[in-house]
Amino acid sequence: MSDMNPDQVLELLGKVRDGTLTPDQGLDRLKHLPFEDLGFARVDHHRTLRQGFPEVIFSPGKKPEQVARIVKSLLRQKSNILITRTDVATYNRVRRVTAKAQFHASARAITIAQDPNVYGEGSIYVVCAGTSDIPVAEEAALTARLMGNIVETTYDVGVAGIHRLLNIRESLTHASVVVVVAGMEGALASVVGGLLSVPVIAVPTSIGYGSSFGGLASLLAMLNSCASNVVVVNIDNGFGAGYVASLINRKRKN
Amino acid sequence: MSDMNPDQVLELLGKVRDGTLTPDQGLDRLKHLPFEDLGFARVDHHRTLRQGFPEVIFSPGKKPEQVARIVKSLLRQKSNILITRTDVATYNRVRRVTAKAQFHASARAITIAQDPNVYGEGSIYVVCAGTSDIPVAEEAALTARLMGNIVETTYDVGVAGIHRLLNIRESLTHASVVVVVAGMEGALASVVGGLLSVPVIAVPTSIGYGSSFGGLASLLAMLNSCASNVVVVNIDNGFGAGYVASLINRKRKN
Amino acid sequence: MSDMNPDQVLELLGKVRDGTLTPDQGLDRLKHLPFEDLGFARVDHHRTLRQGFPEVIFSPGKKPEQVARIVKSLLRQKSNILITRTDVATYNRVRRVTAKAQFHASARAITIAQDPNVYGEGSIYVVCAGTSDIPVAEEAALTARLMGNIVETTYDVGVAGIHRLLNIRESLTHASVVVVVAGMEGALASVVGGLLSVPVIAVPTSIGYGSSFGGLASLLAMLNSCASNVVVVNIDNGFGAGYVASLINRKRKN
Amino acid sequence: MSDMNPDQVLELLGKVRDGTLTPDQGLDRLKHLPFEDLGFARVDHHRTLRQGFPEVIFSPGKKPEQVARIVKSLLRQKSNILITRTDVATYNRVRRVTAKAQFHASARAITIAQDPNVYGEGSIYVVCAGTSDIPVAEEAALTARLMGNIVETTYDVGVAGIHRLLNIRESLTHASVVVVVAGMEGALASVVGGLLSVPVIAVPTSIGYGSSFGGLASLLAMLNSCASNVVVVNIDNGFGAGYVASLINRKRKN
Amino acid sequence: MSDMNPDQVLELLGKVRDGTLTPDQGLDRLKHLPFEDLGFARVDHHRTLRQGFPEVIFSPGKKPEQVARIVKSLLRQKSNILITRTDVATYNRVRRVTAKAQFHASARAITIAQDPNVYGEGSIYVVCAGTSDIPVAEEAALTARLMGNIVETTYDVGVAGIHRLLNIRESLTHASVVVVVAGMEGALASVVGGLLSVPVIAVPTSIGYGSSFGGLASLLAMLNSCASNVVVVNIDNGFGAGYVASLINRKRKN
Amino acid sequence: MSDMNPDQVLELLGKVRDGTLTPDQGLDRLKHLPFEDLGFARVDHHRTLRQGFPEVIFSPGKKPEQVARIVKSLLRQKSNILITRTDVATYNRVRRVTAKAQFHASARAITIAQDPNVYGEGSIYVVCAGTSDIPVAEEAALTARLMGNIVETTYDVGVAGIHRLLNIRESLTHASVVVVVAGMEGALASVVGGLLSVPVIAVPTSIGYGSSFGGLASLLAMLNSCASNVVVVNIDNGFGAGYVASLINRKRKN
Amino acid sequence: MSDMNPDQVLELLGKVRDGTLTPDQGLDRLKHLPFEDLGFARVDHHRTLRQGFPEVIFSPGKKPEQVARIVKSLLRQKSNILITRTDVATYNRVRRVTAKAQFHASARAITIAQDPNVYGEGSIYVVCAGTSDIPVAEEAALTARLMGNIVETTYDVGVAGIHRLLNIRESLTHASVVVVVAGMEGALASVVGGLLSVPVIAVPTSIGYGSSFGGLASLLAMLNSCASNVVVVNIDNGFGAGYVASLINRKRKN
Amino acid sequence: MSDMNPDQVLELLGKVRDGTLTPDQGLDRLKHLPFEDLGFARVDHHRTLRQGFPEVIFSPGKKPEQVARIVKSLLRQKSNILITRTDVATYNRVRRVTAKAQFHASARAITIAQDPNVYGEGSIYVVCAGTSDIPVAEEAALTARLMGNIVETTYDVGVAGIHRLLNIRESLTHASVVVVVAGMEGALASVVGGLLSVPVIAVPTSIGYGSSFGGLASLLAMLNSCASNVVVVNIDNGFGAGYVASLINRKRKN
Repeated sequence: MSDMNPDQVLELLGKVRDGTLTPDQGLDRLKHLPFEDLGFARVDHHRTLRQGFPEVIFSPGKKPEQVARIVKSLLRQKSNILITRTDVATYNRVRRVTAKAQFHASARAITIAQDPNVYGEGSIYVVCAGTSDIPVAEEAALTARLMGNIVETTYDVGVAGIHRLLNIRESLTHASVVVVVAGMEGALASVVGGLLSVPVIAVPTSIGYGSSFGGLASLLAMLNSCASNVVVVNIDNGFGAGYVASLINRKRKN
Repeated sequence: MSDMNPDQVLELLGKVRDGTLTPDQGLDRLKHLPFEDLGFARVDHHRTLRQGFPEVIFSPGKKPEQVARIVKSLLRQKSNILITRTDVATYNRVRRVTAKAQFHASARAITIAQDPNVYGEGSIYVVCAGTSDIPVAEEAALTARLMGNIVETTYDVGVAGIHRLLNIRESLTHASVVVVVAGMEGALASVVGGLLSVPVIAVPTSIGYGSSFGGLASLLAMLNSCASNVVVVNIDNGFGAGYVASLINRKRKN
Repeated sequence: MSDMNPDQVLELLGKVRDGTLTPDQGLDRLKHLPFEDLGFARVDHHRTLRQGFPEVIFSPGKKPEQVARIVKSLLRQKSNILITRTDVATYNRVRRVTAKAQFHASARAITIAQDPNVYGEGSIYVVCAGTSDIPVAEEAALTARLMGNIVETTYDVGVAGIHRLLNIRESLTHASVVVVVAGMEGALASVVGGLLSVPVIAVPTSIGYGSSFGGLASLLAMLNSCASNVVVVNIDNGFGAGYVASLINRKRKN
Repeated sequence: MSDMNPDQVLELLGKVRDGTLTPDQGLDRLKHLPFEDLGFARVDHHRTLRQGFPEVIFSPGKKPEQVARIVKSLLRQKSNILITRTDVATYNRVRRVTAKAQFHASARAITIAQDPNVYGEGSIYVVCAGTSDIPVAEEAALTARLMGNIVETTYDVGVAGIHRLLNIRESLTHASVVVVVAGMEGALASVVGGLLSVPVIAVPTSIGYGSSFGGLASLLAMLNSCASNVVVVNIDNGFGAGYVASLINRKRKN
Repeated sequence: MSDMNPDQVLELLGKVRDGTLTPDQGLDRLKHLPFEDLGFARVDHHRTLRQGFPEVIFSPGKKPEQVARIVKSLLRQKSNILITRTDVATYNRVRRVTAKAQFHASARAITIAQDPNVYGEGSIYVVCAGTSDIPVAEEAALTARLMGNIVETTYDVGVAGIHRLLNIRESLTHASVVVVVAGMEGALASVVGGLLSVPVIAVPTSIGYGSSFGGLASLLAMLNSCASNVVVVNIDNGFGAGYVASLINRKRKN
Repeated sequence: MSDMNPDQVLELLGKVRDGTLTPDQGLDRLKHLPFEDLGFARVDHHRTLRQGFPEVIFSPGKKPEQVARIVKSLLRQKSNILITRTDVATYNRVRRVTAKAQFHASARAITIAQDPNVYGEGSIYVVCAGTSDIPVAEEAALTARLMGNIVETTYDVGVAGIHRLLNIRESLTHASVVVVVAGMEGALASVVGGLLSVPVIAVPTSIGYGSSFGGLASLLAMLNSCASNVVVVNIDNGFGAGYVASLINRKRKN
Repeated sequence: MSDMNPDQVLELLGKVRDGTLTPDQGLDRLKHLPFEDLGFARVDHHRTLRQGFPEVIFSPGKKPEQVARIVKSLLRQKSNILITRTDVATYNRVRRVTAKAQFHASARAITIAQDPNVYGEGSIYVVCAGTSDIPVAEEAALTARLMGNIVETTYDVGVAGIHRLLNIRESLTHASVVVVVAGMEGALASVVGGLLSVPVIAVPTSIGYGSSFGGLASLLAMLNSCASNVVVVNIDNGFGAGYVASLINRKRKN
Repeated sequence: MSDMNPDQVLELLGKVRDGTLTPDQGLDRLKHLPFEDLGFARVDHHRTLRQGFPEVIFSPGKKPEQVARIVKSLLRQKSNILITRTDVATYNRVRRVTAKAQFHASARAITIAQDPNVYGEGSIYVVCAGTSDIPVAEEAALTARLMGNIVETTYDVGVAGIHRLLNIRESLTHASVVVVVAGMEGALASVVGGLLSVPVIAVPTSIGYGSSFGGLASLLAMLNSCASNVVVVNIDNGFGAGYVASLINRKRKN
């Protein structure tokens, strides 16, 4: 992508140099340049500027036609595309734009993979407590995969059957970061956190009834985890967990 | 204890028989007898009527002198006495009433053991998650002991160090009922519940800070436990947990 | 069920003895055995290993076809099968798998009784406050029955007509454990608790409106019961209450 | 008390009549008269205008000296005076103003009785669940007595010992209105409500711990009472309950 | 209604008198009589025993056919019948049972008036804040009318147009008790309370959006009213408010 | 509009002057005049009395026919008409009453512009954080426009892309008052507040999921803003924000 | 205050013009200038840059010595100084720095008036509901006065005595903006809002007990006000209310 | 540290090999070995086994003497020691055990640095919003430093003065992970998150008043951040944030 804004400033400074503009006029124009022309736009465009960041389309409230149009415009870039919280109708429409589109029913997501590179240094492990938590876990796993990570998953390792979790402890310790998805009492985050010494990203889910209050019980449990390596994202926010896990696992710049 | 009320009714019926009272007068008097004279008092007096139930004095709001006076009047019965949420000052005063009084600093309780019988069939196991939960766990253990149970305890088996818990799993499986005391995220209840097939009484504690909201996080986690054998009592209610554990463990009447 | 895992370890030890494996190799293999091979699987499989525990299928999110398939695979075992929070459509499909299936409309449950044994020592009594609480009460009663208990029920004994409750007090005192199901203000748990000296399992229901906040009012009331023998499960959790009541009532091993 | 305001209006109308003021000037003056001069002040002064309403001083935030000064100014009226949420220091100061002042330690109130008349038609009954609820119950009873009612009280009739309540059911049915004061699970309101067909004013108290959340548990229980004759006031608001009970019991005007 | 229970006791006493039973046998039989035979049933049956209490059918969860059957059985008594939270379908079915049935669309209620007597001493005034609050206000008014009261109503007197309320202040002061129905900020209860010296029953409604949280804002406002004569019922509980207002207004027994 | 009420009082005073009424009779009649006749009606009618205040119809619960009828009666006045939270069906019906009606789909509002005057001194700027917040922002903008203000809008300036906000900072500083509409974490209100020295009206929206709890997260954030110039209205209350912004921007009377 | 930053940019541009720097070097230096040198600092310094904005010191957590030192450094500017939530000890220390310091006990504030100018166009009226709300109301009034406004106050006009409020309605209508301070049920905001057509800033206070939940009841009531001209600030935030009221009342730039 | 447990198993296997134990006896002994002897202890001891993990002592509830004794026993290891939420008294006592102890007043922490190695790959940046948030920020920074990281800090960069934050944006982009500490509305997390493409750990603090509800407002805001790279820890949990930041920044094993 051509970096136009510094050019604009350079041009302005060139005019000051050759006298087309006085310094005062230069100052005045500088003040009226749109903010991003001064170079700050980069803070927003980091996704496309840095390789491996997918384009993300949050589907709710958008019609299939709208999503398809956005996809079309994004396809030119070589980054992967992730469409979250979507449905089959949207998939069918997007499919007509690109044959690369894949529908992931349980994660309610469409992925369009264009960039096969691996950007992660280690691997990311996603575990969830119950079968009802799988959609959120899948969203996290898909996000991490689309961001160029090797992702391993084990579902249904709730703490009420602790041996199932202990059976995968060895594999867990090889991950660079672990995402734990759990509704109800959310205890899995603490137990996994206690087994490991890598960052654990806990995702409370709205699975439960009665006093789970839409995921509040799980959310509070995770925030109050006795394991020091647990951090928390919003209820059902599988995307956010996969996203941050990818950032943590990313190869360092240096 | 003399059972006066049935006597009163008998006397009344005797007067009906010998004509001192007509049936109509009898009916009228029956209606004006205090309720408990009709035998319902038993529902309230079960504690003293049935062996092994301790007398319990809830200390807050009572002066040492008052507690001592109550103790004095209760000593005549042969049951054990438990004074909860109390302090050294009260203990010193009660000690002058009976040399049997013992102070349990961490449980903030005074016990007066008069009945050495064992009323429990199996044993009760009390575990807690952190050292800060010990006072509540001790209250539960003391209550169960005073109610004639063999009580085993292991403290500081938080889920962040799951092997400590797994180390005692064998002993846990021998208990008839297990009390789990935990603050913060309260995950221990679910993990213990999942290891066992006996009833688990979960006691959330107010230990924690920030979004633990005085024990709410732990309470909700326990109510939403994925283990089906977990029941819950109020925050910090070690007494209640020990009490119900004792009822469960009690030898059956038949 | 054959207990394969100890066999595996025995075989390994046999190879160490006869020199097929050096002790170092044995240690290495031990470390790589799946966790449950070391005997811990038992903690999870207690249900099938111990007689009288039903197989439970939580129906929500499962299609009739899926439930039927699970039922088919479970029928080989001789234990009872309980399908909770289900519907007629599922029943019709399960019915084609086994003629033993029975639908309980008010409890929204399907039962398949294969094990007629009684495992409970005493009896379990289930009471509920209002007619709207009956589905939850029925779920508790069904669960307890399928777990081999004699279960008595009386519905609609709300505290606003206290004499209805007092009329059954005699029967209540004969139970080993009582389940109290109540929405609205949940007062029934305390009143029943006060009448009895056995454990009372309180189930708040989401019945109510306005400031009942989906069962919160009843839940809080039960947790704060002035009766010491009351423990609480999650809102509408009839299954959990019946399950724990069964554990309490179960014949002791010794 | 002289009724000055109508006089002012009359005087004004007199001036219109005799031409001192034109109708237009009269209209203008009417518009600028303070609002209460038009007679609306009475809505505020109903307490002193109608016999039997006490003067109430809410003590918190006021120094003994201030309270004493207010008392002094109120003594001239013949109504009773009630000082709520106060202490001994204030009492000692008020005592120097009038020897009629009485201190009620448990209710934390000072009363100054000047009007011995009975304004209530029937009687008011105040019951409370536990000994810790007595201060609030006493505040309700004192308020009702100072407002000229015959007040009966029975404390410590918690639902966990239902026979104690049933023993006084006869007396309760003779009251015109009943005040029920209860903390913890607040079940007493529903049970009393169910026994009676008169209005029951329920006062939740902040007594309790853990998930009582400062009286919230009791408040919600009372609002969700299954007894249709229960109304509720704020947590610990004994004064309000006694006040409304008095209004209900008051002799009708006609 | 024949009063059988005292007869049973009388018969028993007769047998004691004539020697058919010894006093001991009499005592034993007394203990086994159902509770209500001792006369306590009356506490429950007060509605039918005392004139002017309507029969109330809470419609939700009942099919038109069921409601009609209940109505049929109740018609024999001469009391009024109120069916709450119902619909046209139910009305059409009930209409076939009795031509006296009337449907009140906004109150979602059916009334069947059989008892034209006035049982109230004074009058009851029902006001509500907004047009959306009318259904709840109508339920309160209908309930009070069916219980034999003269009921006056003024709707849409929200505090944002205080003069509309002030215009009816005169009428309000003639009522024996006032019901105030308001959603949103619920301020109307305090303003009406401040204008009057009779009991004010406040009904918060679930009308509002955002931070009204289903009526919580209004409920809390009413509980914290600065007017001492305000008591509160549950959110949207128009029936309860009309019921208690009727109890307050009822002619005294003496 | 003719001002009848003062006339009534004048007429009354005239009768006093000419002796038709004695002053006493005058006083009596004054007391019985409806309250608003004394001039207080003005407090309610301020909208129509003062130019530039639109007539507002809150649509929910009203049928298209009803809305159309209200519109018809309001059209005679020359003020603008705003119908909020409405739909196409209502629009189609209103359109038949007046061709001036315009439907604003995203704001779910109908406007009928009759008064083209500008009543605002400066301009009002409405910004919102995300595309989902636009309906609420549009409601605010429409309201302000109908109240005679110049309104500028920029949508989708969420704080996660702070440069977009900074790009419009210059324009923002020219506004007299700024409305900030944001869901999720509601941070935009604080950032905008910090950039400006004019009043900022913050509107939390219910946009979000999980722990946004229907807008509570955003509401609390805005109430706790570290910027001193931020005030808050109810969740999703775009109308209220636009209304108050108009009041602030209104030309002063003097 | 000298405006150095534009000078720096000018100097840089001057160097570009005269060839000391090439345009490329100029661009590079521009990028490394601290952000505020580009002129954005103004957004922060608006207070001191614009006349009439006071310097505000939030006292909690600062020692008297620290506050005094800050005051000393601020005195050089000619703006007024406001120290909030402070005490006598701090006042005594500040008094030694400047004799202009005044202590306002009820508002817990120190003011140092240096700028006597009036910046407000109209007047600000502050009303509060109860005597306990006065400290917050005083903080609002002091803030507004220090920001150069004519401020009128009337305290203790709670809605339970509505005529007191109606008596000042005339004065209220003359204000440009009204601040309403109220705890308990917070109804005053709606009533005042309904009387006026200017912006009303509502300040909930933490005054109340029980279910006022530290001001939550009042806060929710104000947010749900049925009066469209009410906006809300945080609980007890008198300063914020006075601050925004001043912004609203400020003379327009044009 | 010698690894005894595998040795024990090896010894056992040796005995099997040489016939001292039969395979059956070996199996039996394996079953009775403490759990951790099977190698699971590692999951708990990871801190000491892996270099750079400090020993952490949570001070509340421990007496200075106790803390000193723990410190003494830990000194032998070469790891750093961190004592959190402590005070000067404890420091004075610890100081007598080791001269390396340093007290950090604002962070309320004692550090004992023994391991000067840098374990972090990049740097960690800690920012906080207000001066009151500094103690929590300092705790995070200290923790990260003791875990071998280069830590940069900038405090008091609240969003109300956004340019202060923008001034450090360049430095922020060089960090591997950023910790954001903020009370009140917690908006800083979203703004920082939006500027960067590295993980941001958000720490809500309990700083605020009124509706901040002890940090709840800030917590909810951070959980609902519109920036995808924000994860959250418990209120005031500076230690947890510093801990996880260190894990993220840690050099990869490979």
